[in-house]
Amino acid sequence: MTDLDPLKFKDWQIAEQAERSMKRIDRLADDWGVLRDELLPYGHYLGKVDYAAVDDRLADQTNGKYIDVTAITPTPLGEGKSTTTMGLVQGLAKRRKNVSGAIRQPSGGPTFNIKGSAAGGGRSQCIPLTPFSLGLTGDIDAVTNAHNLAMVALTARLQHEANNSNEFLAKRGVQRLNIDPHNVQMRWAMDFCAQSLRDIVIGLGGKSDGLMMSSGFAITVSSEIMAILSIFTSLSDLRERMGRIVVAYNRQGNPVTTKDLEVDGAMTAWLVRATNPNLLQTIEGQPVLVHAGPFANIAVGQSSIVADRLGLKLSDYHVTESGFGADIGFEKFWNIKCRISRLKPDCAVIVATVRALKMHGGGPKVTPGKSLDSVYTESNPELVERGLVNLLAHIATVKKAGINPVVCINHFHTDSAEEINLIRRAAESAGARAAVSRHWLSGGDGALELADAVVSACEETNKFELLYETNLPLKARIEKIARDVYGAEGVSYTPDALAKANAIEADATKHDFATCMVKTHLSLSHDPALKGRPDGWTLPIRDILVYNGAGFIVPVAGDIKLMPGTSSDPAFRRIDVDVDTGKVTGLF
Amino acid sequence: MTDLDPLKFKDWQIAEQAERSMKRIDRLADDWGVLRDELLPYGHYLGKVDYAAVDDRLADQTNGKYIDVTAITPTPLGEGKSTTTMGLVQGLAKRRKNVSGAIRQPSGGPTFNIKGSAAGGGRSQCIPLTPFSLGLTGDIDAVTNAHNLAMVALTARLQHEANNSNEFLAKRGVQRLNIDPHNVQMRWAMDFCAQSLRDIVIGLGGKSDGLMMSSGFAITVSSEIMAILSIFTSLSDLRERMGRIVVAYNRQGNPVTTKDLEVDGAMTAWLVRATNPNLLQTIEGQPVLVHAGPFANIAVGQSSIVADRLGLKLSDYHVTESGFGADIGFEKFWNIKCRISRLKPDCAVIVATVRALKMHGGGPKVTPGKSLDSVYTESNPELVERGLVNLLAHIATVKKAGINPVVCINHFHTDSAEEINLIRRAAESAGARAAVSRHWLSGGDGALELADAVVSACEETNKFELLYETNLPLKARIEKIARDVYGAEGVSYTPDALAKANAIEADATKHDFATCMVKTHLSLSHDPALKGRPDGWTLPIRDILVYNGAGFIVPVAGDIKLMPGTSSDPAFRRIDVDVDTGKVTGLF
Repeated sequence: MTDLDPLKFKDWQIAEQAERSMKRIDRLADDWGVLRDELLPYGHYLGKVDYAAVDDRLADQTNGKYIDVTAITPTPLGEGKSTTTMGLVQGLAKRRKNVSGAIRQPSGGPTFNIKGSAAGGGRSQCIPLTPFSLGLTGDIDAVTNAHNLAMVALTARLQHEANNSNEFLAKRGVQRLNIDPHNVQMRWAMDFCAQSLRDIVIGLGGKSDGLMMSSGFAITVSSEIMAILSIFTSLSDLRERMGRIVVAYNRQGNPVTTKDLEVDGAMTAWLVRATNPNLLQTIEGQPVLVHAGPFANIAVGQSSIVADRLGLKLSDYHVTESGFGADIGFEKFWNIKCRISRLKPDCAVIVATVRALKMHGGGPKVTPGKSLDSVYTESNPELVERGLVNLLAHIATVKKAGINPVVCINHFHTDSAEEINLIRRAAESAGARAAVSRHWLSGGDGALELADAVVSACEETNKFELLYETNLPLKARIEKIARDVYGAEGVSYTPDALAKANAIEADATKHDFATCMVKTHLSLSHDPALKGRPDGWTLPIRDILVYNGAGFIVPVAGDIKLMPGTSSDPAFRRIDVDVDTGKVTGLF
Repeated sequence: MTDLDPLKFKDWQIAEQAERSMKRIDRLADDWGVLRDELLPYGHYLGKVDYAAVDDRLADQTNGKYIDVTAITPTPLGEGKSTTTMGLVQGLAKRRKNVSGAIRQPSGGPTFNIKGSAAGGGRSQCIPLTPFSLGLTGDIDAVTNAHNLAMVALTARLQHEANNSNEFLAKRGVQRLNIDPHNVQMRWAMDFCAQSLRDIVIGLGGKSDGLMMSSGFAITVSSEIMAILSIFTSLSDLRERMGRIVVAYNRQGNPVTTKDLEVDGAMTAWLVRATNPNLLQTIEGQPVLVHAGPFANIAVGQSSIVADRLGLKLSDYHVTESGFGADIGFEKFWNIKCRISRLKPDCAVIVATVRALKMHGGGPKVTPGKSLDSVYTESNPELVERGLVNLLAHIATVKKAGINPVVCINHFHTDSAEEINLIRRAAESAGARAAVSRHWLSGGDGALELADAVVSACEETNKFELLYETNLPLKARIEKIARDVYGAEGVSYTPDALAKANAIEADATKHDFATCMVKTHLSLSHDPALKGRPDGWTLPIRDILVYNGAGFIVPVAGDIKLMPGTSSDPAFRRIDVDVDTGKVTGLF
């Protein structure tokens, strides 16, 4: 609990005060109905939950209500989705609902490079904050290790095949794979922003120092293994996916997998503990599951399926978050995560701010680190009104999924009543519920209107359905997402992308792969400069990637940066440890 | 507990049986006198102990008896030191002593490359085995992260200084360090045998992809940060050392440290949790601390000082292990670990096998993976007698430290009574106690003679003293270790090493640095082929390294491989997960 005013105190100060009275992990688990043997504590205030044991025990129990928090097209400052997720959990608890939340684990890259946690803000946060920001129970490290072990297997195999005879290899039970060193798909993993490792040459030195070849590192959260951690449904499913990852091609052009390298079992061994979701709490004491942290472009950008399944078994209301706007985050929640999990959401919350709507209405550019133009801090209903088209597009997307949208007007103290009313009326006219929420300022007490709207939306019957069935060919799927969700007039392909699309359509083994779009989140279109609800545009597909282990086809209509860079003024400069207490400072 | 016969069952089968009845971590801690708030559980059977809290609570308590387990010069198959450490703990417990043990955490490199755990063997093992072999509570990952964060800071700084003006940097509070990219000392870290990353070129691509330079990876356990984790005495000591690490030199030839890069605080943040020792148990239920896993050449090769301090506060007998033979492991325990910790050992156990003594007596070469020559499996007292000189040298070393040696004849079923008696008589004539121990075969019950000898040795007064004081200049120290411990006739230097030695002698800031020798463990000399007790040889110093954070001067008289290679038949091929139970298989 906290009594600090977010207008006067920083997020970490509020978190720190709340942590002084937070529940111990055994009480938190007990209050939530997790049995002693199902809780794997990690210290006093953090733990993992054995999701499979809970699944077994509560196999016959009906699921709780399933709520996804998404947003309108955000400004580069974000719309406060994690904050709203925490606030909604706290608000539902104030209404005496048995509720839990689920969010992603943050990457070490941004934490040490750019100021700011991903645990929410103000009086709506997930605690304890330090382990949350500093690797939690080691899941990301487990992904890094599993990933790099595959690369060790690949590069060692290349070397030993180059140096030794067939007889030598056969004596060790090894058959030549004839991997083409110029056609290696996988890179190494490290969970930092290490731009100097983006493009490297490895294997210099002698015959026992590997084979010389170009290579590179990507940030761990972009690893296919992290993508798999977010969508696996059981250990046997994970095990199978772990063997299907394509690391390279052989000299005949056929894929070489982790299974071919006989490393898939050992990779899975690194991940066994990481399959269990981490249990933390809101600053008002409700359970929050933090599990998996996949990229939002080449993966779903959301916490894991097993975390949501666990929340739905144990709670009457489970609130999960999908990254970015509804065009990206909700679309993947809807057509990838829910398709794989077979879970049916009851409602989606669309977070909107006056600030973002003004930007969509034609307000000046919003740039992180620069002070906001005054149109964003003074009442300007006209700009808001012009920007409402963006909100309406996202409402339409949620309605297409057959579930009930709730627009959360994430209140900022400079918002005027007239601006708020405009948004409310527009949302209601479009068939959505709307609620003004002050959870950042007031915690659960500030989220009562939102909580009530969500409860009411969940009561209403819904007809959830997927946007497309897997018998729809790839190009038709892309077209459907582009038109129905983004509002494009059509799709164009580079010759290379078209050839790939046709090859994938001809390959029956890939027909049930998920279609995971890469597109900027800063516009409904592919062009981040186009705000509002752009029309008259075509979605350009530049490339199509295939992740065989995750089972993802990734059409690329935007930039993919798999290894961000550390800036000239990185956050690590201000991070330190109080040597008397062991407390980490500066993680905010 | 186990009732399986080690002659019929494998180590992992015995461990698995024992794990079915092992103590839960809260009971293990409670039985040992660790308070609830001092235990940080990691699941049900593993935890960390808050060493600083125990230190504070028991500040006035006298320490228990401090026993180091070392060995004669081993064969490449090892002498069973970890097994003896576990066996002795179990044996002392059978004598109703309050006892604990401490061993190193194994590296992921060997685990996934070469078959075999480092948890002991037979009926003397540390459990649970799977987390022991698979990263425990994440300490090695924390070292990897802290280490690589320093490299991220270094390489990002090189890039930003190259690309930007002084004004640009000054605006961010950054002063130019003018780091020389051709004089970078530090490499990246990964805890696998990744030979293809030994020598690499990084920073290819454009201006925002780092600066092109040569670089490489070393295995994490060889990191200076791992060395520091094994010898730090408090969080403030660790924090200070973390800022002193030299990462590179500037264009004027002056050192650039982690503190200069402003990354030392953030590095420490990664390590806070890793400072607490991990608590496991023997298969007979005694507490075993597993903490830090530094290399045995460029570091001390032993578990941490804080783990031993904790064991000595909570137990009447605390058994720790020092890697390799007494010339390497015990010498570093004596003159580095005990000098820094100010702890005084009461006794050292020297593990000897008939097999190794035969090798020292002139028996044929012992090669891992090849079957042993019959002289090693049939009685041959003559060979044993000729090899006893090696044992006598190690006894003399321990006696030089002023403490009481106990020779543990680690019994193998092919040993003859005549061979055993020869060893016993020789040890006793040299002023050591001797005991035959069958802990591998029979657990604690097999180690009663050893336990009794150790108790008796600990009762005797001892006059522990360091081999040299820090006012002794470096070259004289090296000479003293070479003559008094290794039995060399003198020391020679390459011109380069001599120049470095002279420079270090002239630098008063380094006079209290530890002298950490690099030499083969397969001979008392620098030449692994020379068995027994070589004489008439000179120790050749090829190079001298300085680790400023660890505070180590490292004279190099042997090979240093900082990144081992993965073999053509690596262990990961046989590691897998039982998807029904989550059990990891093949880790043995």
